[in-house]
Amino acid sequence: MTAYAFDRVLTPEGWLAPGTVEVGADGRIAGVEAGEEGERVGGIALPGMPNLHSHAFQRAMAGLTERAGPGEDSFWTWREVMYGFVDRLGPDAAEAISAQLYCEMLKAGYTAVAEFHYLHHAPDGSSYGDLAEMAERVTAAAGRTGIALTLLPVLYNAGGFGGAPMGGAQRRFANDADRLLRIVETMRQRRGADPGFRVGLAPHSLRAVGPECLADAVAGLDAMDRDAPIHIHIAEQTKEVEDCVAWSGGRPVERLLETQDVGPRWCLVHATHMTPDETRALAATGAVAGLCPTTEANLGDGLFPLEAYLEAGGRLGIGSDSHVSVSPVEELRWLEYGQRLKSRRRNIAAPPEASTGARLHAAALEGGAGATARETGALEAGRAADIVTLDAAHPLLAGKTDDAILDAWVFAGNANLVRDVMVGGRWVVRNGRHPEEEAIGREFVRTMERLAG
Amino acid sequence: MTAYAFDRVLTPEGWLAPGTVEVGADGRIAGVEAGEEGERVGGIALPGMPNLHSHAFQRAMAGLTERAGPGEDSFWTWREVMYGFVDRLGPDAAEAISAQLYCEMLKAGYTAVAEFHYLHHAPDGSSYGDLAEMAERVTAAAGRTGIALTLLPVLYNAGGFGGAPMGGAQRRFANDADRLLRIVETMRQRRGADPGFRVGLAPHSLRAVGPECLADAVAGLDAMDRDAPIHIHIAEQTKEVEDCVAWSGGRPVERLLETQDVGPRWCLVHATHMTPDETRALAATGAVAGLCPTTEANLGDGLFPLEAYLEAGGRLGIGSDSHVSVSPVEELRWLEYGQRLKSRRRNIAAPPEASTGARLHAAALEGGAGATARETGALEAGRAADIVTLDAAHPLLAGKTDDAILDAWVFAGNANLVRDVMVGGRWVVRNGRHPEEEAIGREFVRTMERLAG
Repeated sequence: MTAYAFDRVLTPEGWLAPGTVEVGADGRIAGVEAGEEGERVGGIALPGMPNLHSHAFQRAMAGLTERAGPGEDSFWTWREVMYGFVDRLGPDAAEAISAQLYCEMLKAGYTAVAEFHYLHHAPDGSSYGDLAEMAERVTAAAGRTGIALTLLPVLYNAGGFGGAPMGGAQRRFANDADRLLRIVETMRQRRGADPGFRVGLAPHSLRAVGPECLADAVAGLDAMDRDAPIHIHIAEQTKEVEDCVAWSGGRPVERLLETQDVGPRWCLVHATHMTPDETRALAATGAVAGLCPTTEANLGDGLFPLEAYLEAGGRLGIGSDSHVSVSPVEELRWLEYGQRLKSRRRNIAAPPEASTGARLHAAALEGGAGATARETGALEAGRAADIVTLDAAHPLLAGKTDDAILDAWVFAGNANLVRDVMVGGRWVVRNGRHPEEEAIGREFVRTMERLAG
Repeated sequence: MTAYAFDRVLTPEGWLAPGTVEVGADGRIAGVEAGEEGERVGGIALPGMPNLHSHAFQRAMAGLTERAGPGEDSFWTWREVMYGFVDRLGPDAAEAISAQLYCEMLKAGYTAVAEFHYLHHAPDGSSYGDLAEMAERVTAAAGRTGIALTLLPVLYNAGGFGGAPMGGAQRRFANDADRLLRIVETMRQRRGADPGFRVGLAPHSLRAVGPECLADAVAGLDAMDRDAPIHIHIAEQTKEVEDCVAWSGGRPVERLLETQDVGPRWCLVHATHMTPDETRALAATGAVAGLCPTTEANLGDGLFPLEAYLEAGGRLGIGSDSHVSVSPVEELRWLEYGQRLKSRRRNIAAPPEASTGARLHAAALEGGAGATARETGALEAGRAADIVTLDAAHPLLAGKTDDAILDAWVFAGNANLVRDVMVGGRWVVRNGRHPEEEAIGREFVRTMERLAG
């Protein structure tokens, strides 16, 4: 047992100043108390933020698709560029890119990541000698950096609604339910004992997974673990909604809720385009909406109906998705700002007389913990010791107390205020530095040079 | 004459790698050439970015208004909070806050700022012993940090359209045209010889300045300097548009263009709510649209009609305005992202087959130079030596060349890539540090503690 003292600690019951967090040898919080005991860390201790949606390899594409093509540019033209990039990525590159990304995530204040992992096979579509080769590489990158990983092997089985054939680049993603479940089972067996690792399953989307295949996959997962998380992309693009209606007569969220037993273990990623009825229905399931504001803006997806969803009591979390940005601050800030631009009002997410920063931060912690299926998201006994400290001496936080700290963090400025990061009881970032960051950065640079050459 | 060598230099004719910039003793660029000569600085040399709209004291409010009030929250409730804050600000506090802000601007890559300066008088509305006291404090802060300042004393003469009386907090802003022109003239005489200083005039808005008062002020400015910049807030809020129509029968931009000789010396700040006709008409004047995407999002103003305005050949620049964010990256990124969210397409600002980052960066340099009335915005002989270097060794820039560097800077990630900053031939930031940043930060913290107490 080690006790760490901070200038302030955010607990589910409010702020302690100063406060002490006791961390057990099992990496869990043993207790949280007022006052300073044990090793002084200082700073403002917050729960680490889960990142509920990641396609790690896309970090290497950040900045490479910000040019207009010859015709109209959209999500669908972006996807073609992404497919071309995927064709050149082997296991070594995927691991180097993931390590760089996870290191950036930790330094930004993310302590856990749900990796929506769909790059399974070799460029020609054949499986690697180890069917779980690419999953192992992502897991190795997480292990090296110390971030907690919820691995979600992705089921990708069709090129469009109604079982349309897959295109060339999609060969690397393709599995039937049985083969995908073998990857899930393999990773469970090899890594299940690691408290920083969890495995679930991700049907890619209703367009890439037909109803029978989806039912088979969920049944197979249930046979292994009835609590394992299930994530799915849904209603990100209006074209996807139109195609779904043309195919099935129903909209994607509507149809998923009708055909699956969607509950708290589910994370519906994006869910951008919902009717008011769908919005209320999704909120009522207890599933988490996986919101990725920076990616959804970069791809021109649209704005999530946040206000109606919060009013209906819906759960949410944030993800950096394509990793054009890697910052819980930018996700939370622009989640709120998008709503302000749409409604021409301010402080959309806050209840009356309360802080918008605190409300969004708390919501994303709760939903992110649910979606990563990790006992995290709050500094209280029994949870994983996932802790982020902000620099209390930074001018941006000068004179700020309690929830005003969260407002300042989310809404004021561009300095990275994160100083120290602990995951599962282990310090992985101290004074803004990860011990492996130079080595990981060099390997990333070499990888990028090879990919460009 | 000193020559500085960089790994890459962005010039109006394209990229040099490596390149050398020769800086004269007058603080201007004497020449730019391929190859490495003289003192090696390294990194990627870009023109410094002008920040065309600033209310410096509002930096101290960042993060303090992100709570819902008892009723519906909007720009107008935010303004009440701002007025309450203004009531407590004296000259010392204004100077300390401005110095902190300008230091942050430099470190983010802004090299010049147009200060829309409206806090002229003591809290009871009486003028300070020196009528230009507050203008001097802002100017002193700029001088201490080294940022180039375009001071725009603000004419504020009414509480609403049609000469409505001013409210209590507006006493500190109030001047008639004569008194405002005395502040302009005073600052021109005292500081006009400083190449890092320029003075213009800012009628606050059509609601705060009636037609005769506006005509008097412009005539008075012309008598001093026919090229001095004129900035005005316009069409930021739909209520403002409606009130203007009710008062005059015309919309704000329409009415301004009808009644004033608006040309390239003008900067119309926000110009958010325009009809297609107004958008084309504004573009045709050669005036600069002063866009402030982070503030416009924070205040729920709405989205500028960027696509139509660029198609019509309009000029634009960026400003950090209320300083909830202080980053040219976040302004440019979300200027584009707002358009993507509205149109559900990508790369809105780029011409076919070209880079969005490069297009927006170039536009904001050109318009920002115009709006600050400073010979800046390009690395070429005769311009001020305002240079920003990006860290070429950063993993985010690995393998990137030419315009892909600008796309990566604007659209990939959250690290501050700015390493060195020169203003008017003088290095003010080296390796990410400003020599005064600790002292300025301590004074800012003391000021914030006093204001909170």
